[in-house]
Amino acid sequence: MTQDEKYMSRAIRLARKGAGWVSPNPMVGAVIVDENGRIVSEGFHERFGGPHAERVALEKLNFNAKGCTLYVNLEPCCHYGKTPPCTQAIIKSGIKRVVVGMADPNPLVSGRGIEILRNHGIEVVVGVLEERCRELNRAFIKWITRKIPYVTLKWAQSLDGKIATKTGDSRWISSEKALKFAHRLRALHDAVLVGKRTVEKDDPMLNVRLVRGRDPLRVVLDADLSLPPDRKVFSVPPETVVFTASGSKEKEERLKEKGVEVIRIPESEGKLSIKEVLKTLGERGITSLLVEGGSQTHASFIKEGLYDEIQAVVAPKIIGSGIEAAGIEGINRVEDAVKLRLLSARRLGEDVVIVLRPLES
Amino acid sequence: MTQDEKYMSRAIRLARKGAGWVSPNPMVGAVIVDENGRIVSEGFHERFGGPHAERVALEKLNFNAKGCTLYVNLEPCCHYGKTPPCTQAIIKSGIKRVVVGMADPNPLVSGRGIEILRNHGIEVVVGVLEERCRELNRAFIKWITRKIPYVTLKWAQSLDGKIATKTGDSRWISSEKALKFAHRLRALHDAVLVGKRTVEKDDPMLNVRLVRGRDPLRVVLDADLSLPPDRKVFSVPPETVVFTASGSKEKEERLKEKGVEVIRIPESEGKLSIKEVLKTLGERGITSLLVEGGSQTHASFIKEGLYDEIQAVVAPKIIGSGIEAAGIEGINRVEDAVKLRLLSARRLGEDVVIVLRPLES
Repeated sequence: MTQDEKYMSRAIRLARKGAGWVSPNPMVGAVIVDENGRIVSEGFHERFGGPHAERVALEKLNFNAKGCTLYVNLEPCCHYGKTPPCTQAIIKSGIKRVVVGMADPNPLVSGRGIEILRNHGIEVVVGVLEERCRELNRAFIKWITRKIPYVTLKWAQSLDGKIATKTGDSRWISSEKALKFAHRLRALHDAVLVGKRTVEKDDPMLNVRLVRGRDPLRVVLDADLSLPPDRKVFSVPPETVVFTASGSKEKEERLKEKGVEVIRIPESEGKLSIKEVLKTLGERGITSLLVEGGSQTHASFIKEGLYDEIQAVVAPKIIGSGIEAAGIEGINRVEDAVKLRLLSARRLGEDVVIVLRPLES
Repeated sequence: MTQDEKYMSRAIRLARKGAGWVSPNPMVGAVIVDENGRIVSEGFHERFGGPHAERVALEKLNFNAKGCTLYVNLEPCCHYGKTPPCTQAIIKSGIKRVVVGMADPNPLVSGRGIEILRNHGIEVVVGVLEERCRELNRAFIKWITRKIPYVTLKWAQSLDGKIATKTGDSRWISSEKALKFAHRLRALHDAVLVGKRTVEKDDPMLNVRLVRGRDPLRVVLDADLSLPPDRKVFSVPPETVVFTASGSKEKEERLKEKGVEVIRIPESEGKLSIKEVLKTLGERGITSLLVEGGSQTHASFIKEGLYDEIQAVVAPKIIGSGIEAAGIEGINRVEDAVKLRLLSARRLGEDVVIVLRPLES
C-alpha cells in the first residue's frame, strides 16, 4: 500500500462513520497530512445538513493548512448547497495537494471541483483506491446517476432455503444476533419495503429497535389496499407509504386518517410495477431500499432484475417443504438459474450471512 | 499454548497426513523432543498395515531416545497386531515421559498402554489437546465404540436449497473447485453411498479422479434391484455393494456376474433399513461413509437421525421450485425443524461450504 492509499483508506474508514445518517448525501471522510507525513486533522460528514468532511477537517486547523495534502474519498463540491463550496475553503487554506478517491458521480458537476482546484495551482490526484470508494457509496452513485434507489433483498432462511414453514410460521428462523443484524441493516437504509402478505402474516413494525440508528421510511405494497388499517406498520411510528393500483378511495381515506401516505401507480397483470415504485422512491430522495419479504415480493424484484444485492442469513435448520425465500418459478435446466456472484460468506453467531450480487452487475 | 500443546499440535498435523490411507486404523502422529525442547524425530502412521507413528519416529533414532519426551495423539498400543506393541519399543528406547492426546477409545484396551508405560517408571500425561485429538479421529472413535461408520451427508445446492431443477438437471450446480472438493471428500471416506434415483438420473462413477487418493467402496441402495446393470457404478472399478430387500434372485445373479456384491437386508414400509446398512458396513471395517444423495436418501438418514455431519456446498444460484437437498416432509412450526449446529462456513471458489452437525451430537 502506498502512502496515498494508506491515508485514503483512513478517509474511507472515517466516511463510513456517517453510514445511516448522511443520506441522501454520500459518505465522505477527509484526512489532512502535513509535509512530514503526519496526520494533522481529520473529519467526516456526520449528518445530512451538517458540514462536509473537508470543512470539518479544515475547521480544526482554523482553515489554515499551508503546504498540506488533503485526502478525501469523493471529489470536493464546488457549488452552494446547504453549505458553501468546499473548493473555496480548500483554496483559501493553502492546501497544496488534494488526493481524491473518485470524481463526483453526479454527471452535472463531475470534474468541476477538481478543475477549480487545479486552476488555482493545486496538484490534484484522482482515483486512489477508487474501487473501494465506489463500493462505499454504491447506493449514492446508483441514485444520483439512475434516479432510483440501490435495492438490497434481505431474508433469513433455513439451509434448505425456506423463510417460513408451510403454515407460514417464521419465528424465529435465525438467531438473536441475526435479528440485531437485521435492525442494523434497516438503520443503514433510507427505506424498507415489504409485500402485503408479510404485513398480514407477521405484522412487523419494521423500525429500528435493537441498535441505535435512524428509522427507515416504511414502504408497503398493497395493490388493492386490502390490508386492515390496524396493522402495526400503520399504527406505530415512523411514517409509512403504501403503494396501490386499484385500492378504493374509501380505503385510501381510512389509511390517510392514520397518517399513512397512499401513492397510486399503474399495475400490470395484477401486480404493482416495481419500476414505478423505485422511480417514485428515487424522486423522494430514497437512495437505498431494503426489501424484507416476503417470498412473492422477492420474486418480483428478482424476475424484473431490479435488485443490486442479496443479504441471505442462512440458519442451521432444515424445514422441508415450506415457503421459499424467493418464490420464483422453477426452471428446467441449471444453466437457466438466476446466477449470482458471491461477495462474502461469514459466520454471524449460529448463522451464516451470505452476500450476493447479480452476476452482470 | 503450552509447550506440551505445541508439540501435540504438531503430532496432530503429522497424523492428518495419513488421512484417507490408514483406515480402519486411526490417524496417529508422533513427535520426539529431547531434554532441551528440540524435536529430534517425527513420524506418522502412513498406511494401513504399515508401522505405527511411534515406531516410525523411534526407528529414525535407532530406538534410542534416552531422556526424551514422546508426544502422540492417541494412546500407544500394547498388543500384538500387524506390528509388535508400541509400548515395548517406547520402554526399550529410554523415553522418560509420554504425552498422550487421548486414551484409546477401544473399551477393550483403553488405558492399558498407559498403565504399562507407568508401570515401567515412565511419566505419562493424558488429555493434552484432547478435543482436537477426538475431532481428528471422530470416525474411528465412532466405529470402534458403536460398530457403525461415521456418516457424512454431502450435497451441492443452490442458495434456495435445490440439488436439481424440477426436471432433475443437476449439472453443474457448483463450480469446478467444488467438484474437486467432492472428490477429495470421497478419498477421505471408506465408502460412498447413493440411492437408486441418483444412479438412475446421474449415472455417476463415484470414484476418485480429480485428486490423488484411494477409491472408496461404492454402496448403492436399491430395494427391489430395479437398476439396469449397465450403470457405471456396476461397470467401472472399484467394487460396488448393493443393498436390497425384495430384489429377485435372477436380478441378483445378473449383478453378481458383473462382480457386484448383493446384500439382502430387511425393509420396513418399502424402504431399506438404514440401521441395517450401517451395521453391515461397520462389520466390514467401514469407519466412514459419505452419502452423496439423492434427496430421498438424505431424507432417510436425517429422519432416522443416523448421520453425524452435513457438508453442504451452496452455489450462488437461485433455481426456484425443484428437487430439495433433503426431501423431508414439511413441518408446521419452526421450532420443529431439524436443528443443526454450525461448525464452519468458508468460501470455496465461487461457492460456500457449510459444515453442520446434529445439535445433540
